[in-house]
Amino acid sequence: MNKVYLDYAATTPCDERVVKEMADYWNKNFANPSSIHQDGMRAKQCLEKNRAKIAELIGAQAKEIIFTSGGTEANNTAIKSAAKANAGKGNHIISTAIEHPSVLESLKFLEKCGFEVTLLEVDPYGRVDLDKLTEAIRPQTILVSVMHANNEIGTIQPISDIVSTVKRIKEDILVHTDAVQSLGHIPVHVRKMGMDLLSASAHKFYGPKGVGLLYIKKGTKMTPLIHGGGQEGGKRASTENTPAIAGMRKALEINAQNMDKEAKETAKLRDLFKKKIKEHIPQVRFNGHPKYGLPNNLSMSVKYIDGEALALRLDLEGISCSTGSACSSEKGLPSQTLQAIGLSGEWIHGTIRFSLGKYTCLEDIDYCVAALTKVVQALRNLSPLGDVAHYRQHPVK
Amino acid sequence: MNKVYLDYAATTPCDERVVKEMADYWNKNFANPSSIHQDGMRAKQCLEKNRAKIAELIGAQAKEIIFTSGGTEANNTAIKSAAKANAGKGNHIISTAIEHPSVLESLKFLEKCGFEVTLLEVDPYGRVDLDKLTEAIRPQTILVSVMHANNEIGTIQPISDIVSTVKRIKEDILVHTDAVQSLGHIPVHVRKMGMDLLSASAHKFYGPKGVGLLYIKKGTKMTPLIHGGGQEGGKRASTENTPAIAGMRKALEINAQNMDKEAKETAKLRDLFKKKIKEHIPQVRFNGHPKYGLPNNLSMSVKYIDGEALALRLDLEGISCSTGSACSSEKGLPSQTLQAIGLSGEWIHGTIRFSLGKYTCLEDIDYCVAALTKVVQALRNLSPLGDVAHYRQHPVK
Repeated sequence: MNKVYLDYAATTPCDERVVKEMADYWNKNFANPSSIHQDGMRAKQCLEKNRAKIAELIGAQAKEIIFTSGGTEANNTAIKSAAKANAGKGNHIISTAIEHPSVLESLKFLEKCGFEVTLLEVDPYGRVDLDKLTEAIRPQTILVSVMHANNEIGTIQPISDIVSTVKRIKEDILVHTDAVQSLGHIPVHVRKMGMDLLSASAHKFYGPKGVGLLYIKKGTKMTPLIHGGGQEGGKRASTENTPAIAGMRKALEINAQNMDKEAKETAKLRDLFKKKIKEHIPQVRFNGHPKYGLPNNLSMSVKYIDGEALALRLDLEGISCSTGSACSSEKGLPSQTLQAIGLSGEWIHGTIRFSLGKYTCLEDIDYCVAALTKVVQALRNLSPLGDVAHYRQHPVK
Repeated sequence: MNKVYLDYAATTPCDERVVKEMADYWNKNFANPSSIHQDGMRAKQCLEKNRAKIAELIGAQAKEIIFTSGGTEANNTAIKSAAKANAGKGNHIISTAIEHPSVLESLKFLEKCGFEVTLLEVDPYGRVDLDKLTEAIRPQTILVSVMHANNEIGTIQPISDIVSTVKRIKEDILVHTDAVQSLGHIPVHVRKMGMDLLSASAHKFYGPKGVGLLYIKKGTKMTPLIHGGGQEGGKRASTENTPAIAGMRKALEINAQNMDKEAKETAKLRDLFKKKIKEHIPQVRFNGHPKYGLPNNLSMSVKYIDGEALALRLDLEGISCSTGSACSSEKGLPSQTLQAIGLSGEWIHGTIRFSLGKYTCLEDIDYCVAALTKVVQALRNLSPLGDVAHYRQHPVK
């Protein structure tokens, strides 16, 4: 049986060069970077070199980068710390209805602590409206958190415009961007984009799991989420995960070198995938912005069938994909993102997400289209829903 | 030049078998354990197998273990979450003056949030007095946090007695134990010891950096430190660090198999090390409990010289050791632990910590004793301090 992995947005395999990069750190260059001996100093030097390189790749200064255990911790730190450190200025936070659970749940937690949260609505493609953002800003607003690219439908937000809109109204409102889905895939330059805080996660761009980063613009007040030793400039205690940090640097470096080329190739494959689906399967819709979208995302909704059943059937054909996002899949709730873009329950119910990666090839797409066509027809034949009878009488060829 | 690593308490190299164990996870069994496809299910199964094995090795149930990014996050989670989730019952927390910075700084943070903290004094060997503990307990006490073994001087606390003392007075006071220095080195059995919360870190027992665990006794109320997806039973969001967790399980398994034998061998080497130091170097003292101490810890204070200078000179001889602990070494403050055991400034100033490991051999000790003797004499010859003149006239042979 063919095996086709189309769940790169959930996690990516480590690039072989990343695995190699980490090798030295397990039991050769393994010392604690806080140790004062030469072994420790060597570990520290590598750590700082990796920090400097990562900073350079996203347009930051080395001191503006702290390492975390992943995107979730980075988002939690950004939001909770920025809120608490700036609580003296106000208690209002603006975000969107389609953020990742690590943002939305952090905000819910802050609401319990007395903060007020406004979640902006988005348009049918998942984009934030700048006028609505402007209207939402209050004198008490201290933080605006908007993701760079959505994990479920791939829509890219106009972050630079969001930042300038916010800063024009009130310079000292912090802007945070969850770039977990975008960093390593599309250009991210913190200085040009202008945000104060940016989160990312290595395992979304062929780096290892268990490591992420948080960009904290120089001068931004922060309360650590994790207290202890003085690591990471006092902003995040814990012995630094030196192998994974080296792996993340390597992964980001590799991706930066080939980003444009890979993005184009991936988008081409994705567009072909879409085209073939449209040719073979009636009553489907694609979600996300047709222009401002991640090159690797293909979120589709198929009428009259259940997305989970579809994903499981595809799985039996050797195809790995997601319903909604892996991050919230265990909860079994309807996707908040799909609701926010105004999808009806019927479409939401039949949604699956394919996410392509650098190892995806044309054969994968062809195989997947054939399997999808077969599986959709089989499920529709079983479906007790509405005018599905039509499909029984006029089977899709 | 010889290279002798005697800083195993700061961090350990990964065991080769641990590195091998993780290999499959980088780009073969790499899926997100929350994904619903077979790749995800396989990752999930491995994750849960590793959780069950780790739980078994410490006498817990699988559901009582959550994985964290390390000991610091585990300590932060235990303390902050237990405090916040139980704030309705009271606001008083008891700990000791010799805890790791991740505990002490978490407590300082809680003090700012309205909690009251009592730090118990310890005896000259670093042990908690059960009578003083009893006296400190108030009707408002909700949490007692006492480390299993101290990171600087190796002293082991009577945790079982501490737990029973606390529970006898007030059953619902939670007891947390920081077992970062002990797990994998001396027996840890949560059911027998009786605590409600226990933290540990893989890189202290030949596992990888960036992963730790928190035991949370069934029924213990917790507020997550990191919010987001529903991973880890809703207690800690983030894509699970599957390679590192597998590595931690392997490391713990290896250590469990050889624990008694290794502890005895290490203690024997350590005792020989001590004996030889006493024979060759006058005016030294050893810190920590002579009976209740970690087998691998040798904290010593050398009069008339500076511990940092000593460590740096030893480093030039190829020997890696610490002054105090790596975790606080960057802050440059005198060790709180050494102050708490009543050491005078003179002794504190001249303290270094050797920590042995499973790769330490007799030759390492002999080499280290010779280097230490040479370096101490050289530094004392330079020292402007008090009766050091004596050593110039009667050089140590």
